[in-house]
Amino acid sequence: MSKLLAVGTVAFDAIETPFGKTDKILGGSGTFVSLAASQFGIKTGVVSVVGGDFPQAYLDMMNAKGIDTQGVEIIKEGKTFFWSGKYHNDMNSRDTLITELNVLEHFKPVVPEDFKDASVVMLGNLHPLTQASVLDQMTEKPKLVVLDTMGFWMDIALNDLHDVIKRIDVITINDEEARQLSGEYSLVNAAKKIHEMGPKYVVIKKGEHGALLFHEEKIFFAPALPLAEVFDPTGAGDTFAGGFCGFLAMTEDISFENMKNAVIYGSNLASFCVEKFGTERMEKLTKEEVQKRLHAFKQLTQFDIEIN
Amino acid sequence: MSKLLAVGTVAFDAIETPFGKTDKILGGSGTFVSLAASQFGIKTGVVSVVGGDFPQAYLDMMNAKGIDTQGVEIIKEGKTFFWSGKYHNDMNSRDTLITELNVLEHFKPVVPEDFKDASVVMLGNLHPLTQASVLDQMTEKPKLVVLDTMGFWMDIALNDLHDVIKRIDVITINDEEARQLSGEYSLVNAAKKIHEMGPKYVVIKKGEHGALLFHEEKIFFAPALPLAEVFDPTGAGDTFAGGFCGFLAMTEDISFENMKNAVIYGSNLASFCVEKFGTERMEKLTKEEVQKRLHAFKQLTQFDIEIN
Repeated sequence: MSKLLAVGTVAFDAIETPFGKTDKILGGSGTFVSLAASQFGIKTGVVSVVGGDFPQAYLDMMNAKGIDTQGVEIIKEGKTFFWSGKYHNDMNSRDTLITELNVLEHFKPVVPEDFKDASVVMLGNLHPLTQASVLDQMTEKPKLVVLDTMGFWMDIALNDLHDVIKRIDVITINDEEARQLSGEYSLVNAAKKIHEMGPKYVVIKKGEHGALLFHEEKIFFAPALPLAEVFDPTGAGDTFAGGFCGFLAMTEDISFENMKNAVIYGSNLASFCVEKFGTERMEKLTKEEVQKRLHAFKQLTQFDIEIN
Repeated sequence: MSKLLAVGTVAFDAIETPFGKTDKILGGSGTFVSLAASQFGIKTGVVSVVGGDFPQAYLDMMNAKGIDTQGVEIIKEGKTFFWSGKYHNDMNSRDTLITELNVLEHFKPVVPEDFKDASVVMLGNLHPLTQASVLDQMTEKPKLVVLDTMGFWMDIALNDLHDVIKRIDVITINDEEARQLSGEYSLVNAAKKIHEMGPKYVVIKKGEHGALLFHEEKIFFAPALPLAEVFDPTGAGDTFAGGFCGFLAMTEDISFENMKNAVIYGSNLASFCVEKFGTERMEKLTKEEVQKRLHAFKQLTQFDIEIN
């Protein structure tokens, strides 16, 4: 069975949207990535760190989904990473209210023996040196390494970021970050510059405006499913990445044609994530719901023009 | 042969973008719509008004493309409608520098006898009463009436707008205008409200983020082709509408499935329009280029997931 290793945060989020607000609930990139990947019947392991305040019930829930959490270090005397944010009315922008790094501040990921030969590695948004340290621990070269990052690391650790992205296959990045990293406004030109930095595949996430996959001269586009209501966008990007990686791990086919399908799967799962607060929707998602919505994606995008 | 009647402005534009600026060049919604429609080998007539300052060479160019301009009234002592605008660096927003209505101020469209039985009517962005007066002149009920409008008419003539959109089949509108007209932020909900106002089909144009087609519970999405450089967005929306209408007039099939193709054709033509200033690219566009880019649209959007 294919193995997927997901490195990222397992955390508390407190979220406010025009639809309501939450207390501290389960969040974090490692959480969303692994929950999405758990849809694919592969062996998914998550590497992260939490404090003594982190409920065992959350880990139990992840284990029940087949997610291996032995790589989640628990620092009894520490506190779990906490993020709080408030979304604006358009749901496309948000203000961060609180960021408490806590145990994340000195996070040194340790890859469990069992996942040192994972075929797909998803490096969630962390310091580039932390991301690199995960690759250093792999005993076999993964078939595919996917990396997520953000503007913050471009500001404070650009050289380290350049070093690690030389070692990866796919970068997932949002449109503004792609512009920042490349210095190009046009996303086509931005992807070209980022290709030259190393990654053979560039995925540019545009939130409600979908996602673009670039490879050499080829481009594929997956829309976000138009929804009557986006309830909470938190975790949508990580869910997208988890669906993308999980599908590729399951199919063991990293061709561009199959990556198109992976992008659709990622968009599909993300469309569920935003329907409820935090991980609520993803925890209860069934395979039947996923399949049904794939039909909606086909209806949304497929056409049949005769071309001469 | 199918007939398409396009009512709109035939005008002068002066455009400034980060790539350069123009003197007064050919522009106007009627111009862009009919140039796009002329790709389809149908009989296209344009109804508009110009002043004595309007060069015969522009009309000759349109005639050479098979566009019937007998409906373009020439007011010898008047001046042609003139718009001047400057695009910001992101090309998504622009400032209007000059608007001189001139002969447009008292424009009373007169539909030529030959087009009173047109099967497709495209009502370009004009006062809703002007748009309605065109429908009043049709001797046969058109198979399809498509209407474009803008926020300005919602501000100053909302009741008239509501009256005319009860009489049409398809409304094309941009995302901000759809929100203004419906009072709904979500485009899915906006389309639902606009359906209730009359049009069975709602096309929401999102510029570089593509276009959505809504019909009952169905949604189709066409992306804009990602381009390395958008040189001048002027006329892209009208070119989209002209491609949409022209394709439907040519195929004489107004089913939802065929409208998907029409949306793709519209997006395809719009992707050329933005490559040069004004009408320059559309004037020289060949059928071979159009067909080739349709392949690019297929590559961009089509995938092949097996769904259970």
